[in-house]
Amino acid sequence: MNHDTQINDAAYQVRLGARAGELTGPTANLAPGRVQANLAILPRALADDFLLFCQRNPKPCPLLAMSEPGSPALPELGHDIDIRTDIPRYRVWKDGQLIAEPTDVRDFWRDDLVSFLIGCSFSFEEAMQENDLPVRHIEQRRNVPMYRTNVPTQAAGVFKGPLVVSMRPLKAADAIRAIQVTSRFPSVHGAPVHFGEPAEIGISDIQRPDYGDAVDILPGEVPVFWACGVTPQSVVAAVKPEFCITHAPGHMLVTDLLNSRMAVF
Amino acid sequence: MNHDTQINDAAYQVRLGARAGELTGPTANLAPGRVQANLAILPRALADDFLLFCQRNPKPCPLLAMSEPGSPALPELGHDIDIRTDIPRYRVWKDGQLIAEPTDVRDFWRDDLVSFLIGCSFSFEEAMQENDLPVRHIEQRRNVPMYRTNVPTQAAGVFKGPLVVSMRPLKAADAIRAIQVTSRFPSVHGAPVHFGEPAEIGISDIQRPDYGDAVDILPGEVPVFWACGVTPQSVVAAVKPEFCITHAPGHMLVTDLLNSRMAVF
Repeated sequence: MNHDTQINDAAYQVRLGARAGELTGPTANLAPGRVQANLAILPRALADDFLLFCQRNPKPCPLLAMSEPGSPALPELGHDIDIRTDIPRYRVWKDGQLIAEPTDVRDFWRDDLVSFLIGCSFSFEEAMQENDLPVRHIEQRRNVPMYRTNVPTQAAGVFKGPLVVSMRPLKAADAIRAIQVTSRFPSVHGAPVHFGEPAEIGISDIQRPDYGDAVDILPGEVPVFWACGVTPQSVVAAVKPEFCITHAPGHMLVTDLLNSRMAVF
Repeated sequence: MNHDTQINDAAYQVRLGARAGELTGPTANLAPGRVQANLAILPRALADDFLLFCQRNPKPCPLLAMSEPGSPALPELGHDIDIRTDIPRYRVWKDGQLIAEPTDVRDFWRDDLVSFLIGCSFSFEEAMQENDLPVRHIEQRRNVPMYRTNVPTQAAGVFKGPLVVSMRPLKAADAIRAIQVTSRFPSVHGAPVHFGEPAEIGISDIQRPDYGDAVDILPGEVPVFWACGVTPQSVVAAVKPEFCITHAPGHMLVTDLLNSRMAVF
Protein backbone atom coordinates (compact mmCIF):
# COMPACT_ATOMS: atom_id res chain seq x y z
CA MET A 1 0.00 0.00 0.00
CA ASN A 2 1.22 3.50 -0.74
CA HIS A 3 1.34 5.33 2.54
CA ASP A 4 1.85 9.03 2.81
CA THR A 5 3.80 9.23 6.04
CA GLN A 6 4.37 12.96 6.05
CA ILE A 7 2.87 14.72 9.03
CA ASN A 8 -0.28 16.52 8.02
CA ASP A 9 -0.92 19.53 10.21
CA ALA A 10 -4.71 19.62 9.73
CA ALA A 11 -5.05 15.93 10.61
CA TYR A 12 -2.66 16.25 13.55
CA GLN A 13 -4.59 19.23 14.89
CA VAL A 14 -7.79 17.12 14.83
CA ARG A 15 -6.04 14.38 16.81
CA LEU A 16 -4.55 16.87 19.28
CA GLY A 17 -7.99 18.46 19.69
CA ALA A 18 -9.48 15.08 20.51
CA ARG A 19 -6.56 14.32 22.83
CA ALA A 20 -7.08 17.59 24.72
CA GLY A 21 -10.81 16.89 25.07
CA GLU A 22 -11.63 19.98 22.99
CA LEU A 23 -13.03 17.99 20.06
CA THR A 24 -15.75 15.54 21.09
CA GLY A 25 -18.00 15.54 17.97
CA PRO A 26 -18.09 13.72 14.63
CA THR A 27 -15.13 14.00 12.28
CA ALA A 28 -16.95 14.31 8.93
CA ASN A 29 -15.42 17.12 6.84
CA LEU A 30 -12.47 17.60 9.21
CA ALA A 31 -9.00 17.56 7.57
CA PRO A 32 -10.42 17.17 4.04
CA GLY A 33 -8.40 14.87 1.82
CA ARG A 34 -7.13 12.73 4.72
CA VAL A 35 -8.11 9.12 5.32
CA GLN A 36 -10.40 8.49 8.28
CA ALA A 37 -10.57 5.06 9.88
CA ASN A 38 -12.93 2.82 11.84
CA LEU A 39 -11.57 1.40 15.12
CA ALA A 40 -11.91 -2.00 16.80
CA ILE A 41 -9.74 -2.76 19.85
CA LEU A 42 -9.73 -6.39 20.98
CA PRO A 43 -7.84 -8.49 23.53
CA ARG A 44 -4.85 -10.30 22.09
CA ALA A 45 -6.63 -13.65 22.56
CA LEU A 46 -9.12 -12.66 19.83
CA ALA A 47 -6.73 -10.66 17.66
CA ASP A 48 -5.41 -13.49 15.49
CA ASP A 49 -8.92 -14.60 14.55
CA PHE A 50 -10.00 -11.05 13.83
CA LEU A 51 -6.95 -10.43 11.67
CA LEU A 52 -7.82 -13.55 9.69
CA PHE A 53 -11.43 -12.38 9.44
CA CYS A 54 -10.24 -9.10 7.92
CA GLN A 55 -7.92 -10.94 5.54
CA ARG A 56 -10.78 -13.14 4.36
CA ASN A 57 -13.25 -10.27 3.98
CA PRO A 58 -11.28 -7.40 2.51
CA LYS A 59 -14.28 -5.59 1.00
CA PRO A 60 -16.14 -4.98 4.29
CA CYS A 61 -12.95 -5.08 6.43
CA PRO A 62 -10.14 -3.31 4.57
CA LEU A 63 -7.47 -3.31 7.29
CA LEU A 64 -5.32 -0.19 7.16
CA ALA A 65 -3.22 -0.99 10.24
CA MET A 66 -2.97 -3.30 13.26
CA SER A 67 -1.04 -2.24 16.35
CA GLU A 68 1.46 -4.15 18.47
CA PRO A 69 -0.26 -5.59 21.58
CA GLY A 70 -0.47 -2.95 24.30
CA SER A 71 0.95 -0.21 22.09
CA PRO A 72 -1.18 2.88 21.47
CA ALA A 73 0.99 3.95 18.51
CA LEU A 74 0.09 3.49 14.83
CA PRO A 75 3.12 4.81 12.98
CA GLU A 76 1.83 3.65 9.57
CA LEU A 77 -1.19 5.91 9.93
CA GLY A 78 0.26 9.10 11.30
CA HIS A 79 2.65 11.05 13.45
CA ASP A 80 2.46 10.65 17.22
CA ILE A 81 -0.89 8.81 17.19
CA ASP A 82 -2.13 7.70 20.63
CA ILE A 83 -5.15 5.53 19.88
CA ARG A 84 -6.27 5.88 23.55
CA THR A 85 -6.90 9.62 23.22
CA ASP A 86 -6.92 10.73 19.57
CA ILE A 87 -10.49 9.77 18.65
CA PRO A 88 -13.18 12.24 19.76
CA ARG A 89 -15.47 9.64 21.31
CA TYR A 90 -15.25 5.90 22.03
CA ARG A 91 -17.56 3.10 22.96
CA VAL A 92 -16.38 0.61 25.61
CA TRP A 93 -18.01 -2.84 25.67
CA LYS A 94 -17.94 -5.60 28.33
CA ASP A 95 -19.40 -9.00 27.43
CA GLY A 96 -21.25 -7.34 24.56
CA GLN A 97 -22.79 -4.61 26.75
CA LEU A 98 -22.02 -0.93 26.16
CA ILE A 99 -20.57 0.33 29.47
CA ALA A 100 -19.19 3.77 28.60
CA GLU A 101 -18.87 6.38 25.84
CA PRO A 102 -15.79 8.25 27.00
CA THR A 103 -13.70 10.78 25.09
CA ASP A 104 -10.53 8.95 26.07
CA VAL A 105 -9.85 5.32 27.03
CA ARG A 106 -6.60 5.60 29.05
CA ASP A 107 -8.46 4.38 32.15
CA PHE A 108 -9.57 1.25 30.29
CA TRP A 109 -6.22 0.45 28.70
CA ARG A 110 -4.63 -3.00 29.06
CA ASP A 111 -1.30 -4.41 27.94
CA ASP A 112 -2.97 -7.08 25.81
CA LEU A 113 -5.11 -4.78 23.65
CA VAL A 114 -4.64 -4.79 19.89
CA SER A 115 -6.02 -1.96 17.72
CA PHE A 116 -7.48 -2.59 14.26
CA LEU A 117 -7.98 0.42 12.00
CA ILE A 118 -10.28 -0.23 9.06
CA GLY A 119 -10.91 1.90 5.97
CA CYS A 120 -14.04 4.04 5.81
CA SER A 121 -16.36 5.16 3.03
CA PHE A 122 -15.54 8.84 3.60
CA SER A 123 -12.52 8.28 1.34
CA PHE A 124 -14.46 7.06 -1.68
CA GLU A 125 -17.31 9.50 -1.09
CA GLU A 126 -14.78 12.32 -1.42
CA ALA A 127 -13.69 10.82 -4.75
CA MET A 128 -17.35 10.57 -5.84
CA GLN A 129 -17.94 14.22 -5.01
CA GLU A 130 -14.81 15.23 -6.92
CA ASN A 131 -16.50 13.52 -9.91
CA ASP A 132 -19.75 15.48 -9.40
CA LEU A 133 -21.54 12.28 -8.42
CA PRO A 134 -24.36 12.88 -5.93
CA VAL A 135 -23.96 11.40 -2.43
CA ARG A 136 -27.57 11.52 -1.32
CA HIS A 137 -27.13 11.17 2.46
CA ILE A 138 -24.64 14.05 2.43
CA GLU A 139 -27.06 16.16 0.34
CA GLN A 140 -29.85 15.30 2.79
CA ARG A 141 -27.62 15.73 5.87
CA ARG A 142 -28.39 12.24 7.11
CA ASN A 143 -26.35 9.19 8.08
CA VAL A 144 -25.72 6.77 5.24
CA PRO A 145 -28.40 4.01 5.14
CA MET A 146 -26.97 0.59 6.02
CA TYR A 147 -28.55 -2.87 5.74
CA ARG A 148 -27.82 -6.36 7.00
CA THR A 149 -27.85 -8.67 3.97
CA ASN A 150 -28.28 -12.42 3.50
CA VAL A 151 -24.75 -12.58 2.09
CA PRO A 152 -22.49 -14.44 4.55
CA THR A 153 -18.98 -13.26 5.32
CA GLN A 154 -16.13 -15.78 5.32
CA ALA A 155 -15.89 -16.94 8.95
CA ALA A 156 -12.62 -16.95 10.91
CA GLY A 157 -12.62 -18.55 14.36
CA VAL A 158 -15.42 -17.02 16.41
CA PHE A 159 -16.01 -14.21 13.92
CA LYS A 160 -18.82 -14.73 11.45
CA GLY A 161 -22.07 -13.13 10.35
CA PRO A 162 -23.78 -11.39 7.46
CA LEU A 163 -22.32 -8.72 5.25
CA VAL A 164 -23.57 -5.20 6.05
CA VAL A 165 -23.83 -2.82 3.10
CA SER A 166 -24.24 0.92 2.70
CA MET A 167 -26.46 2.32 -0.07
CA ARG A 168 -26.20 5.36 -2.32
CA PRO A 169 -28.87 5.90 -5.02
CA LEU A 170 -27.58 6.87 -8.47
CA LYS A 171 -28.80 7.12 -12.06
CA ALA A 172 -27.39 4.27 -14.20
CA ALA A 173 -24.80 6.41 -16.00
CA ASP A 174 -23.64 7.85 -12.65
CA ALA A 175 -23.55 4.35 -11.15
CA ILE A 176 -21.23 3.23 -13.96
CA ARG A 177 -18.93 6.18 -13.21
CA ALA A 178 -19.17 5.49 -9.45
CA ILE A 179 -18.11 1.88 -10.07
CA GLN A 180 -15.07 3.15 -11.97
CA VAL A 181 -14.22 5.75 -9.31
CA THR A 182 -14.64 3.51 -6.27
CA SER A 183 -12.84 0.57 -7.93
CA ARG A 184 -9.70 2.68 -7.57
CA PHE A 185 -10.01 2.47 -3.77
CA PRO A 186 -9.80 -1.22 -2.78
CA SER A 187 -8.39 -0.30 0.64
CA VAL A 188 -11.54 1.65 1.50
CA HIS A 189 -14.26 -0.85 0.41
CA GLY A 190 -13.65 -0.52 -3.35
CA ALA A 191 -16.30 -1.24 -5.98
CA PRO A 192 -19.95 -1.85 -5.09
CA VAL A 193 -21.08 -5.39 -4.35
CA HIS A 194 -24.59 -5.02 -5.79
CA PHE A 195 -27.02 -2.66 -7.48
CA GLY A 196 -30.69 -2.75 -8.31
CA GLU A 197 -33.11 -5.20 -6.70
CA PRO A 198 -32.56 -5.06 -2.89
CA ALA A 199 -34.31 -8.42 -2.33
CA GLU A 200 -31.53 -10.20 -4.23
CA ILE A 201 -29.24 -9.63 -1.24
CA GLY A 202 -31.94 -10.11 1.39
CA ILE A 203 -33.03 -6.50 1.94
CA SER A 204 -36.81 -6.50 2.34
CA ASP A 205 -37.50 -2.75 2.65
CA ILE A 206 -35.05 -0.21 1.26
CA GLN A 207 -36.81 2.54 3.23
CA ARG A 208 -36.09 0.75 6.54
CA PRO A 209 -32.31 0.52 6.95
CA ASP A 210 -30.90 -1.51 9.84
CA TYR A 211 -28.43 1.29 10.67
CA GLY A 212 -28.33 4.97 9.73
CA ASP A 213 -31.16 6.84 8.01
CA ALA A 214 -33.34 6.22 4.97
CA VAL A 215 -32.64 8.53 2.01
CA ASP A 216 -34.72 9.50 -1.00
CA ILE A 217 -34.37 7.44 -4.17
CA LEU A 218 -35.39 9.66 -7.08
CA PRO A 219 -37.09 8.54 -10.34
CA GLY A 220 -34.55 6.91 -12.65
CA GLU A 221 -32.16 6.09 -9.80
CA VAL A 222 -31.12 2.62 -8.69
CA PRO A 223 -29.81 1.75 -5.25
CA VAL A 224 -26.09 0.91 -5.35
CA PHE A 225 -24.65 -1.11 -2.46
CA TRP A 226 -21.10 -1.08 -1.08
CA ALA A 227 -19.58 -3.39 1.55
CA CYS A 228 -19.66 -1.46 4.81
CA GLY A 229 -17.30 -1.03 7.76
CA VAL A 230 -20.21 -1.70 10.09
CA THR A 231 -19.78 -5.38 9.10
CA PRO A 232 -16.81 -5.93 11.46
CA GLN A 233 -18.60 -3.99 14.22
CA SER A 234 -21.71 -6.16 13.92
CA VAL A 235 -19.56 -9.31 13.79
CA VAL A 236 -17.64 -8.25 16.89
CA ALA A 237 -20.88 -7.35 18.67
CA ALA A 238 -22.30 -10.80 17.94
CA VAL A 239 -19.27 -12.46 19.56
CA LYS A 240 -19.79 -10.45 22.79
CA PRO A 241 -16.08 -10.40 23.63
CA GLU A 242 -15.24 -10.02 27.31
CA PHE A 243 -13.75 -6.62 26.44
CA CYS A 244 -13.76 -4.41 23.37
CA ILE A 245 -13.42 -0.75 22.43
CA THR A 246 -14.75 0.84 19.23
CA HIS A 247 -15.09 4.41 17.99
CA ALA A 248 -18.49 6.04 18.50
CA PRO A 249 -20.32 6.15 15.14
CA GLY A 250 -19.03 9.02 12.98
CA HIS A 251 -16.18 9.74 15.41
CA MET A 252 -13.26 8.38 13.41
CA LEU A 253 -9.48 8.36 13.63
CA VAL A 254 -8.23 11.10 11.30
CA THR A 255 -4.97 9.83 9.83
CA ASP A 256 -2.13 11.55 7.99
CA LEU A 257 -2.73 9.37 4.90
CA LEU A 258 -4.01 11.04 1.76
CA ASN A 259 -7.27 9.73 0.28
CA SER A 260 -5.74 10.33 -3.15
CA ARG A 261 -2.86 8.00 -2.26
CA MET A 262 -5.35 5.20 -1.59
CA ALA A 263 -6.16 5.08 -5.33
CA VAL A 264 -4.45 2.14 -7.00
CA PHE A 265 -4.20 3.76 -10.42
CA MET B 1 -2.10 4.40 -27.65
CA ASN B 2 0.13 1.37 -27.15
CA HIS B 3 0.43 -0.43 -30.46
CA ASP B 4 2.00 -3.81 -30.82
CA THR B 5 3.58 -3.51 -34.26
CA GLN B 6 5.16 -6.94 -34.41
CA ILE B 7 3.91 -9.10 -37.24
CA ASN B 8 1.52 -11.72 -35.94
CA ASP B 9 1.52 -14.81 -38.06
CA ALA B 10 -2.03 -15.94 -37.19
CA ALA B 11 -3.47 -12.51 -37.99
CA TYR B 12 -1.39 -12.20 -41.14
CA GLN B 13 -2.55 -15.62 -42.33
CA VAL B 14 -6.18 -14.49 -41.91
CA ARG B 15 -5.50 -11.42 -44.03
CA LEU B 16 -3.63 -13.43 -46.67
CA GLY B 17 -6.50 -15.94 -46.75
CA ALA B 18 -8.97 -13.12 -47.38
CA ARG B 19 -6.64 -11.61 -49.97
CA ALA B 20 -6.43 -14.94 -51.83
CA GLY B 21 -10.21 -15.31 -51.78
CA GLU B 22 -9.92 -18.46 -49.67
CA LEU B 23 -11.49 -16.89 -46.57
CA THR B 24 -14.88 -15.31 -47.27
CA GLY B 25 -16.73 -15.88 -43.96
CA PRO B 26 -16.97 -14.10 -40.61
CA THR B 27 -13.81 -13.50 -38.57
CA ALA B 28 -15.12 -14.26 -35.05
CA ASN B 29 -12.65 -16.50 -33.20
CA LEU B 30 -9.93 -16.17 -35.85
CA ALA B 31 -6.47 -15.14 -34.57
CA PRO B 32 -7.57 -15.10 -30.90
CA GLY B 33 -6.06 -12.28 -28.88
CA ARG B 34 -5.74 -9.93 -31.87
CA VAL B 35 -7.76 -6.75 -32.31
CA GLN B 36 -10.43 -6.85 -35.02
CA ALA B 37 -11.72 -3.62 -36.55
CA ASN B 38 -14.79 -2.17 -38.25
CA LEU B 39 -14.24 -0.48 -41.62
CA ALA B 40 -15.68 2.64 -43.23
CA ILE B 41 -14.13 3.93 -46.47
CA LEU B 42 -15.26 7.41 -47.57
CA PRO B 43 -14.31 9.89 -50.27
CA ARG B 44 -11.83 12.51 -49.11
CA ALA B 45 -14.51 15.21 -49.36
CA LEU B 46 -16.31 13.60 -46.40
CA ALA B 47 -13.26 12.40 -44.50
CA ASP B 48 -12.56 15.52 -42.45
CA ASP B 49 -16.13 15.63 -41.15
CA PHE B 50 -16.09 11.93 -40.37
CA LEU B 51 -12.77 12.21 -38.53
CA LEU B 52 -14.27 15.00 -36.44
CA PHE B 53 -17.37 12.86 -35.83
CA CYS B 54 -15.16 10.07 -34.47
CA GLN B 55 -13.23 12.53 -32.32
CA ARG B 56 -16.47 13.87 -30.84
CA ASN B 57 -17.97 10.42 -30.26
CA PRO B 58 -15.12 8.24 -29.01
CA LYS B 59 -17.32 5.68 -27.24
CA PRO B 60 -19.27 4.52 -30.33
CA CYS B 61 -16.47 5.48 -32.77
CA PRO B 62 -13.09 4.61 -31.23
CA LEU B 63 -10.84 5.32 -34.20
CA LEU B 64 -7.89 2.93 -34.32
CA ALA B 65 -6.42 4.24 -37.60
CA MET B 66 -7.15 6.46 -40.60
CA SER B 67 -5.33 5.94 -43.88
CA GLU B 68 -3.71 8.42 -46.23
CA PRO B 69 -6.08 9.28 -49.13
CA GLY B 70 -5.81 6.65 -51.84
CA SER B 71 -3.46 4.45 -49.83
CA PRO B 72 -4.57 0.90 -49.04
CA ALA B 73 -1.89 0.53 -46.32
CA LEU B 74 -2.48 0.78 -42.57
CA PRO B 75 0.96 0.40 -41.05
CA GLU B 76 -0.24 1.20 -37.51
CA LEU B 77 -2.53 -1.83 -37.58
CA GLY B 78 -0.38 -4.50 -39.11
CA HIS B 79 2.21 -5.73 -41.54
CA ASP B 80 1.54 -5.47 -45.27
CA ILE B 81 -2.17 -4.65 -44.87
CA ASP B 82 -4.02 -3.97 -48.14
CA ILE B 83 -7.43 -2.74 -47.08
CA ARG B 84 -8.81 -3.45 -50.61
CA THR B 85 -8.32 -7.20 -50.26
CA ASP B 86 -7.64 -8.20 -46.66
CA ILE B 87 -11.22 -8.27 -45.36
CA PRO B 88 -13.21 -11.42 -46.23
CA ARG B 89 -16.29 -9.58 -47.49
CA TYR B 90 -17.20 -5.95 -48.17
CA ARG B 91 -20.30 -3.90 -48.84
CA VAL B 92 -20.14 -1.23 -51.54
CA TRP B 93 -22.66 1.61 -51.43
CA LYS B 94 -23.64 4.23 -54.04
CA ASP B 95 -25.88 7.11 -52.99
CA GLY B 96 -26.92 5.05 -49.96
CA GLN B 97 -27.82 1.95 -51.98
CA LEU B 98 -26.00 -1.35 -51.52
CA ILE B 99 -24.62 -2.20 -54.97
CA ALA B 100 -22.26 -5.11 -54.29
CA GLU B 101 -20.92 -7.48 -51.61
CA PRO B 102 -17.58 -8.45 -53.10
CA THR B 103 -14.70 -10.25 -51.43
CA ASP B 104 -12.26 -7.60 -52.70
CA VAL B 105 -12.73 -3.96 -53.70
CA ARG B 106 -9.78 -3.37 -56.04
CA ASP B 107 -12.21 -2.77 -58.91
CA PHE B 108 -13.95 -0.04 -56.91
CA TRP B 109 -10.80 1.69 -55.67
CA ARG B 110 -10.32 5.45 -56.15
CA ASP B 111 -7.42 7.73 -55.39
CA ASP B 112 -9.52 9.88 -53.06
CA LEU B 113 -10.69 7.11 -50.71
CA VAL B 114 -9.84 7.30 -47.00
CA SER B 115 -10.15 4.24 -44.74
CA PHE B 116 -11.34 4.49 -41.14
CA LEU B 117 -10.74 1.51 -38.86
CA ILE B 118 -12.82 1.54 -35.70
CA GLY B 119 -12.51 -0.61 -32.59
CA CYS B 120 -14.87 -3.55 -32.14
CA SER B 121 -16.50 -5.22 -29.15
CA PHE B 122 -14.75 -8.55 -29.85
CA SER B 123 -11.79 -7.13 -27.90
CA PHE B 124 -13.67 -6.45 -24.67
CA GLU B 125 -15.77 -9.62 -25.01
CA GLU B 126 -12.53 -11.59 -24.98
CA ALA B 127 -11.59 -9.80 -21.75
CA MET B 128 -15.03 -10.56 -20.31
CA GLN B 129 -14.67 -14.26 -21.12
CA GLU B 130 -11.19 -14.30 -19.55
CA ASN B 131 -12.99 -13.09 -16.39
CA ASP B 132 -15.58 -15.89 -16.59
CA LEU B 133 -18.30 -13.35 -17.34
CA PRO B 134 -21.07 -14.75 -19.54
CA VAL B 135 -21.45 -13.28 -23.04
CA ARG B 136 -24.98 -14.42 -23.83
CA HIS B 137 -25.03 -14.01 -27.61
CA ILE B 138 -21.83 -16.07 -27.85
CA GLU B 139 -23.35 -18.73 -25.57
CA GLN B 140 -26.48 -18.73 -27.72
CA ARG B 141 -24.53 -18.57 -31.01
CA ARG B 142 -26.38 -15.46 -32.13
CA ASN B 143 -25.39 -11.98 -33.25
CA VAL B 144 -25.19 -9.44 -30.44
CA PRO B 145 -28.50 -7.55 -30.07
CA MET B 146 -28.19 -3.87 -31.01
CA TYR B 147 -30.63 -1.01 -30.57
CA ARG B 148 -31.05 2.54 -31.86
CA THR B 149 -31.43 4.79 -28.80
CA ASN B 150 -32.85 8.27 -28.25
CA VAL B 151 -29.38 9.45 -27.18
CA PRO B 152 -28.01 11.82 -29.83
CA THR B 153 -24.40 11.67 -30.96
CA GLN B 154 -22.38 14.89 -31.23
CA ALA B 155 -22.86 16.00 -34.85
CA ALA B 156 -19.93 16.89 -37.14
CA GLY B 157 -20.73 18.38 -40.53
CA VAL B 158 -23.19 16.10 -42.31
CA PHE B 159 -22.70 13.27 -39.81
CA LYS B 160 -25.29 13.04 -37.06
CA GLY B 161 -27.81 10.61 -35.65
CA PRO B 162 -28.68 8.49 -32.64
CA LEU B 163 -26.28 6.37 -30.61
CA VAL B 164 -26.58 2.63 -31.32
CA VAL B 165 -25.86 0.32 -28.38
CA SER B 166 -25.17 -3.38 -28.00
CA MET B 167 -26.63 -5.29 -25.05
CA ARG B 168 -25.30 -8.11 -22.87
CA PRO B 169 -27.43 -9.34 -19.93
CA LEU B 170 -25.58 -9.86 -16.63
CA LYS B 171 -26.30 -10.38 -12.96
CA ALA B 172 -25.57 -7.22 -10.94
CA ALA B 173 -22.30 -8.51 -9.43
CA ASP B 174 -21.13 -9.62 -12.89
CA ALA B 175 -22.18 -6.26 -14.34
CA ILE B 176 -19.98 -4.51 -11.75
CA ARG B 177 -17.04 -6.70 -12.77
CA ALA B 178 -17.84 -6.16 -16.47
CA ILE B 179 -17.79 -2.39 -15.91
CA GLN B 180 -14.34 -2.73 -14.34
CA VAL B 181 -13.06 -5.01 -17.10
CA THR B 182 -14.38 -3.02 -20.05
CA SER B 183 -13.32 0.33 -18.54
CA ARG B 184 -9.78 -0.82 -19.25
CA PHE B 185 -10.53 -0.77 -23.01
CA PRO B 186 -11.46 2.83 -23.96
CA SER B 187 -10.19 2.29 -27.53
CA VAL B 188 -12.74 -0.50 -28.09
CA HIS B 189 -15.92 1.16 -26.70
CA GLY B 190 -14.86 1.08 -23.03
CA ALA B 191 -17.34 1.07 -20.14
CA PRO B 192 -21.08 0.62 -20.63
CA VAL B 193 -23.23 3.69 -21.22
CA HIS B 194 -26.35 2.37 -19.45
CA PHE B 195 -27.82 -0.56 -17.58
CA GLY B 196 -31.29 -1.50 -16.37
CA GLU B 197 -34.44 0.15 -17.73
CA PRO B 198 -34.25 0.10 -21.57
CA ALA B 199 -36.91 2.83 -21.92
CA GLU B 200 -34.58 5.35 -20.27
CA ILE B 201 -32.52 5.39 -23.47
CA GLY B 202 -35.50 5.06 -25.82
CA ILE B 203 -35.57 1.28 -26.30
CA SER B 204 -39.23 0.21 -26.33
CA ASP B 205 -38.86 -3.60 -26.62
CA ILE B 206 -35.65 -5.32 -25.50
CA GLN B 207 -36.77 -8.49 -27.34
CA ARG B 208 -36.90 -6.63 -30.66
CA PRO B 209 -33.40 -5.34 -31.43
CA ASP B 210 -32.92 -3.03 -34.42
CA TYR B 211 -29.86 -5.03 -35.53
CA GLY B 212 -28.63 -8.52 -34.64
CA ASP B 213 -30.64 -11.07 -32.68
CA ALA B 214 -32.59 -11.05 -29.43
CA VAL B 215 -30.97 -13.02 -26.58
CA ASP B 216 -32.39 -14.50 -23.39
CA ILE B 217 -32.33 -12.37 -20.25
CA LEU B 218 -32.38 -14.75 -17.28
CA PRO B 219 -34.00 -14.11 -13.87
CA GLY B 220 -31.81 -11.77 -11.81
CA GLU B 221 -30.05 -10.37 -14.86
CA VAL B 222 -30.15 -6.77 -16.01
CA PRO B 223 -29.48 -5.61 -19.57
CA VAL B 224 -26.14 -3.76 -19.81
CA PHE B 225 -25.62 -1.47 -22.80
CA TRP B 226 -22.37 -0.52 -24.52
CA ALA B 227 -21.83 2.08 -27.26
CA CYS B 228 -21.67 0.16 -30.53
CA GLY B 229 -19.60 0.37 -33.69
CA VAL B 230 -22.80 0.15 -35.72
CA THR B 231 -23.33 3.82 -34.75
CA PRO B 232 -20.89 5.16 -37.37
CA GLN B 233 -22.32 2.74 -39.96
CA SER B 234 -25.88 3.95 -39.32
CA VAL B 235 -24.70 7.58 -39.36
CA VAL B 236 -22.88 7.07 -42.67
CA ALA B 237 -25.93 5.26 -44.13
CA ALA B 238 -28.18 8.20 -43.19
CA VAL B 239 -25.92 10.61 -45.10
CA LYS B 240 -26.19 8.48 -48.30
CA PRO B 241 -22.71 9.47 -49.53
CA GLU B 242 -22.19 9.24 -53.27
CA PHE B 243 -19.73 6.42 -52.59
CA CYS B 244 -18.80 4.35 -49.56
CA ILE B 245 -17.35 0.94 -48.67
CA THR B 246 -17.84 -0.89 -45.38
CA HIS B 247 -17.05 -4.39 -44.16
CA ALA B 248 -19.90 -6.91 -44.33
CA PRO B 249 -21.26 -7.45 -40.80
CA GLY B 250 -19.02 -9.82 -38.81
CA HIS B 251 -16.34 -9.79 -41.54
CA MET B 252 -13.72 -7.63 -39.84
CA LEU B 253 -10.15 -6.55 -40.44
CA VAL B 254 -7.95 -8.78 -38.27
CA THR B 255 -5.02 -6.61 -37.13
CA ASP B 256 -1.65 -7.45 -35.61
CA LEU B 257 -2.53 -5.47 -32.46
CA LEU B 258 -2.95 -7.38 -29.23
CA ASN B 259 -6.26 -7.01 -27.40
CA SER B 260 -4.29 -7.11 -24.16
CA ARG B 261 -2.28 -4.07 -25.31
CA MET B 262 -5.53 -2.11 -25.70
CA ALA B 263 -5.95 -2.17 -21.90
CA VAL B 264 -5.00 1.18 -20.35
CA PHE B 265 -3.96 -0.27 -16.99
